[in-house]
Amino acid sequence: MTKVIDFQTDPSKYRHWRVEYNGNVASLYMDVDEQGGLFEGYELKLNSYDLGVDIELADVVQRMRFEHPEIGAVVMQSGKDNVFCAGANIRMLGGAEHAHKVNFCKFTNETRNTFEMAGADSGQTYICAVKGSCAGGGYELALACDYIIITDDGSTNVALPEVPLLAVLPGTGGLTRVTDKRKVRRDRADVFCSIEEGVRGQRAKEWNLVDEVVANSKFAETVAERAAEFAARNRPAAVGKGITLEPLKRIFADNGSVSYSTVEVDLDRDAGIVTVTIAGPEDKAPASVADLHKQGSQTWMLRAARELDDAILHLRLNELETGVMIFKTTGDADKLLAHEAMLLDNDDDWLAREILLYWKRVLKRVDMTSRSLVALVEPGSCFAGTLAELLFAVDRSYMAEGEFEGDNRPIAAIRLSEVNFGRFPMGNDLTRLETRFLGTPEAVDAAKATIGEALEAEQADELGLVTYAFDDIDWEDEIRVFLEERASFSPDAMTGMEANLRFAGPETMETRIFGRLTAWQNWIFQRPNAVGKDGALQRYGTGQRGEYDRRRV
Amino acid sequence: MTKVIDFQTDPSKYRHWRVEYNGNVASLYMDVDEQGGLFEGYELKLNSYDLGVDIELADVVQRMRFEHPEIGAVVMQSGKDNVFCAGANIRMLGGAEHAHKVNFCKFTNETRNTFEMAGADSGQTYICAVKGSCAGGGYELALACDYIIITDDGSTNVALPEVPLLAVLPGTGGLTRVTDKRKVRRDRADVFCSIEEGVRGQRAKEWNLVDEVVANSKFAETVAERAAEFAARNRPAAVGKGITLEPLKRIFADNGSVSYSTVEVDLDRDAGIVTVTIAGPEDKAPASVADLHKQGSQTWMLRAARELDDAILHLRLNELETGVMIFKTTGDADKLLAHEAMLLDNDDDWLAREILLYWKRVLKRVDMTSRSLVALVEPGSCFAGTLAELLFAVDRSYMAEGEFEGDNRPIAAIRLSEVNFGRFPMGNDLTRLETRFLGTPEAVDAAKATIGEALEAEQADELGLVTYAFDDIDWEDEIRVFLEERASFSPDAMTGMEANLRFAGPETMETRIFGRLTAWQNWIFQRPNAVGKDGALQRYGTGQRGEYDRRRV
Repeated sequence: MTKVIDFQTDPSKYRHWRVEYNGNVASLYMDVDEQGGLFEGYELKLNSYDLGVDIELADVVQRMRFEHPEIGAVVMQSGKDNVFCAGANIRMLGGAEHAHKVNFCKFTNETRNTFEMAGADSGQTYICAVKGSCAGGGYELALACDYIIITDDGSTNVALPEVPLLAVLPGTGGLTRVTDKRKVRRDRADVFCSIEEGVRGQRAKEWNLVDEVVANSKFAETVAERAAEFAARNRPAAVGKGITLEPLKRIFADNGSVSYSTVEVDLDRDAGIVTVTIAGPEDKAPASVADLHKQGSQTWMLRAARELDDAILHLRLNELETGVMIFKTTGDADKLLAHEAMLLDNDDDWLAREILLYWKRVLKRVDMTSRSLVALVEPGSCFAGTLAELLFAVDRSYMAEGEFEGDNRPIAAIRLSEVNFGRFPMGNDLTRLETRFLGTPEAVDAAKATIGEALEAEQADELGLVTYAFDDIDWEDEIRVFLEERASFSPDAMTGMEANLRFAGPETMETRIFGRLTAWQNWIFQRPNAVGKDGALQRYGTGQRGEYDRRRV
Repeated sequence: MTKVIDFQTDPSKYRHWRVEYNGNVASLYMDVDEQGGLFEGYELKLNSYDLGVDIELADVVQRMRFEHPEIGAVVMQSGKDNVFCAGANIRMLGGAEHAHKVNFCKFTNETRNTFEMAGADSGQTYICAVKGSCAGGGYELALACDYIIITDDGSTNVALPEVPLLAVLPGTGGLTRVTDKRKVRRDRADVFCSIEEGVRGQRAKEWNLVDEVVANSKFAETVAERAAEFAARNRPAAVGKGITLEPLKRIFADNGSVSYSTVEVDLDRDAGIVTVTIAGPEDKAPASVADLHKQGSQTWMLRAARELDDAILHLRLNELETGVMIFKTTGDADKLLAHEAMLLDNDDDWLAREILLYWKRVLKRVDMTSRSLVALVEPGSCFAGTLAELLFAVDRSYMAEGEFEGDNRPIAAIRLSEVNFGRFPMGNDLTRLETRFLGTPEAVDAAKATIGEALEAEQADELGLVTYAFDDIDWEDEIRVFLEERASFSPDAMTGMEANLRFAGPETMETRIFGRLTAWQNWIFQRPNAVGKDGALQRYGTGQRGEYDRRRV
């Protein structure tokens, strides 16, 4: 599995999903092309999926929000008879390397979260209409929807058969959503997660595994009714026309570097370090809402978000040996803050709001990136507002202090804006500054009092906004030593450490999925009982169960 | 490492710790015997520890609460010059099997939690007085204390060098306590956890890694002052005399079964199933507080708790292939409830309160046990009050319905008492019934309304207190099929599934330590970068760093 995975797609390229738009209801059909796997060696039977299927789904969800703001309800359903979705493809999992499995699960988790966020943040509620078998990752798709209807046809079921069948966990939030979202009683959850055949009909409703069970003869009608109800509630008034998410412009260099219009990805594979530089806007902010809509996907705030999102996904999956990700910025902070302010001032406009919500998701993607994240605040940088938020997402930040000899760029400064105080909550539902200052909430207030000010290194350091400030005498050496050292550590230990240190404070369903559930799944994905030559994943389909080391850990 | 590990000890056997009692202050000295390792193959240099050292420490903490209730402050300190504690012994970790490493970490975590609970629940505050190097598990010992004082002698430091030095995580709550208890800023935590040499003096205070930094010349005096302050606050009035925790009476059979006075452990190694049967009290409840104190460690509520605790620890560490733990009870519910009520009615007495607090800890130990936990409520059983709580700790429960042919024991019934509604919170700070009924809090109220009633199967099932109720026609078959199936699943998948399903609802520092941090550590403990032949643990002490696979997962 060494081919480069591309996270960009569009409806003209879909092989696995199709969408029909009718007024304010969208019908989303999963109809996986068996021969359309991202890699060789497996067929995507029974609507099973691999990363390629999920990349399309992520694109569907994203386009729905920008291209079809009129949609208030999305009905997810199968395009095949007799099966809803069989979950992640087992042969793909059996053949995949550990790092691919883990990154695959992370991306599918992030995509599941986007359904929930579309409902909560933008009133696009996902309804799952299940006919046929809905097992494993298939039921996890359903769990991420806000309403599940199943038909009572005697064969349709919901199931999480991973544990008995494959000796792994439901890896896409299933266990957590069963207990924490659907609040299934824990002993029932224990039963449900250990039976291959799953649960059908009224019992599924009684155990709260689904919201509604409908006779087969009334299924289509009831689903349409529910969709209309949700849509009417979410879109009581007409919404303007969507914009088009135009293809990203990217140039890939042979050494792995990538150029976008606002983002430069400079890769140093030997050192295991990548530098991601985001350039602030060159043009003035849109003059009006009409102007914003006219700019559409070219407006800086949206273009930069899309490019950064793509760059991070590309690096995560395609450049596994690059363990350190450095963020830099360049540009004019005034212009950037003007672009941002234009959106904030017009957040009764759906597009302005959606762009800010997209930044929320991109910044969460940064939080979830298992790389050592560093920000360098250099002369001429543009860590203001939305881009300043990166400073609080990274593991460490270094700031240049005062003038640098022979450098005529402006002295490094940070500027906070209101977005740093509530617009972009982390998965733990706190802002990054609240998480940073968990023990000293008064430090958040002190930072807030500086909104708009250009904070040079000494002041930023005093406010606790950066880890270190160095003048031009120490700057290069300190950073070089740090980067060399970081690159010398065990990547696994760094991943574990960062996953634990980044999310202090309260836990939410989201942090449980990415923290607890993921870590257990990673562990199990390493264990011979699952992945060894006699393990369950390898033996799947042979009619033999895995042979297990019976020792409990 | 196949020798049987014994969790029972007493001060006459200690090799690694000593305690001096002065009024209401205890001085606890860690002075590890290099030659006193639990297994062959390593020396416990520099106050490093293995499970044996921690078993003694757990005993110290436990005895302090029962034998020395007058103590209001415990000063933990090193009995050696120049070193406080070097943490878990690396050669022991390098040589240990995965399951032992994980269980070792779990027990040390549980023991650390008991310091914090002693402070919070019983006003025995642990103060850590650090002179010399305090690294890794050494600093984690300090972190579990409620107050850390270090001396400013130029060499004393605190450090978590696991990541740079050993390519594993600080495994005993270190990462979580740094961010969530001490609320160290996350970028500082990142720095702190990636430098071998740690942090000294004022900087340790500034970063909140310690509470107080004192000049060496004033160290002893200041520590004594702080201890006196805490003790005076915790013990404003005199407290009665302690009791003696007498040795447990146990008989080990060749087949691995164990008989205690109130607990029977029946082991079926071939099936991988153990049955733990707890017999309710035969005698009447203590007639008075004086009588309770006279009975001391022989009073049923304390004896049963100690025996159950020991049985669980024994099974966890010594019977790794036993994957299913069945809880049964026998006896007279009225008597049990009378014993319990006697403690509840007298919880202004320190001993009555301590016994109930001990049950809280034992029940948490059950929650944390990585075995499939099952309760069988049979005719003649005694699932009342404290023992009924086991029904809500297990993964599943089966209840016998009505009369069983040829069985003249009383019909199976459950009786709830007030202890099921607040006395025994789980690690997530909810009661087990609140966790069970997370989505239907009214079900907790319905259960509460039955306090004292004998609930037979039909009613218990209706109230949601048991998973299944079967009459005597189905009983044996259903349970046999279930047990056979359970025993056939991958132990790793069960461990991961159970760890995820047991703790729905809010997360706390405790659930993070046992859920998130532990799972990441388990994963890292499997990775070649840590444990492979060129991994950091194997290479430790050779002067060579581990050779790492650089791919990020």
